Amino acid sequence: MILHTYFRSTASWRVRIALALKDVAHEAAFQNLKTGEQHSPGFLAVNPQGFLPALVLDDGQVLTQSLAIVQYLDEVYPEPPLMPDAPLDRARINAFAQSIACDIHPVQNLKVLQKVQTIGGEEARAHWAREVIESGLAASAQLLTSTQSRFCFGDRPSLADLVLVPQLSNARRFGAAIPQRLQDIEAACLELPAFRDTRPEAQPDAPPAAGGS
Amino acid sequence: MILHTYFRSTASWRVRIALALKDVAHEAAFQNLKTGEQHSPGFLAVNPQGFLPALVLDDGQVLTQSLAIVQYLDEVYPEPPLMPDAPLDRARINAFAQSIACDIHPVQNLKVLQKVQTIGGEEARAHWAREVIESGLAASAQLLTSTQSRFCFGDRPSLADLVLVPQLSNARRFGAAIPQRLQDIEAACLELPAFRDTRPEAQPDAPPAAGGS
Repeated sequence: MILHTYFRSTASWRVRIALALKDVAHEAAFQNLKTGEQHSPGFLAVNPQGFLPALVLDDGQVLTQSLAIVQYLDEVYPEPPLMPDAPLDRARINAFAQSIACDIHPVQNLKVLQKVQTIGGEEARAHWAREVIESGLAASAQLLTSTQSRFCFGDRPSLADLVLVPQLSNARRFGAAIPQRLQDIEAACLELPAFRDTRPEAQPDAPPAAGGS
Repeated sequence: MILHTYFRSTASWRVRIALALKDVAHEAAFQNLKTGEQHSPGFLAVNPQGFLPALVLDDGQVLTQSLAIVQYLDEVYPEPPLMPDAPLDRARINAFAQSIACDIHPVQNLKVLQKVQTIGGEEARAHWAREVIESGLAASAQLLTSTQSRFCFGDRPSLADLVLVPQLSNARRFGAAIPQRLQDIEAACLELPAFRDTRPEAQPDAPPAAGGS
């Protein structure tokens, strides 16, 4: 299994966490979105859409769209489960994940921000990203059903946490305010190696941190 | 069960199709997005996020996010199924649905287009919507695995078709080109009452068509 990924792609990070939580053996192939490697003939042969992430199964089948990939992994590698069994509980977790994966992330991804910059300049771009993320996270936080649980929904990570933590990394990049409850959940997640070791800055394709070791 | 809907909300249309295909008894409550009824105290008491669709179950529980609602309905009312059983087949259908529900729809919804218009004016708005939909539909069409099937995936409608048909209605509104294969699938879907009777123009809250009966 090969995961095509980029350290800063938050959609790729969701899949990195799922693979790590479930301890699924895989290799990584790096596509630098900043230099346009996703449009290279090599990657387009894998995914004609040129989108990350893409997961190549051992038989050569290629899966795309991060939430579809995570659900596939959860069905084929059920332990530990990322979703509960009860339809209503599943609907709550799916709604939270989609409030980020549909309502926030696509509206502030690299492609969209480049379009905003073309129309309105750098200031419009920065304002756009911050506003989309701040209002979006406030809405997402309202979907949490408990103010006490360690993770988004209960005492172990679910699909909701896999989507939340990468989005908060983006929120910080753009200086967006993050509700305290979401920060607390993020801290709990980052205590787990599956979240911590898959962070952008811990990836082999991340540039060395300035002054870092 | 009460579905809060607006005739032109394509996310609401997805849920209307699911309810119709599965013949689930429900009432409709109409929120006019154009006049801002989604921000009224009455609707905010139902869904504090002010988003459509929202499905109120008989016990008062409120479900949000259209794909989460459709999956819930598919799990609780399994006939006819909107998803196959095999994880790989499910991943293909989910990826197609998300290529529209994540990569197209949120980037061209009313809220985003209003922001684009504020930054760049009416021309920027129209260009933005058309470009997002055209490039998005071309990418989605690449995810279809058969050039022959009557519906997106196989000989009966799935989640993929529920998401596709409403998006094509938006494509027409903005004059975006639609791949022929997607038009053929749309025509097959609209032969079914569950798709035809849930169209925006067939809704009780749609304005009477100019010169229509």
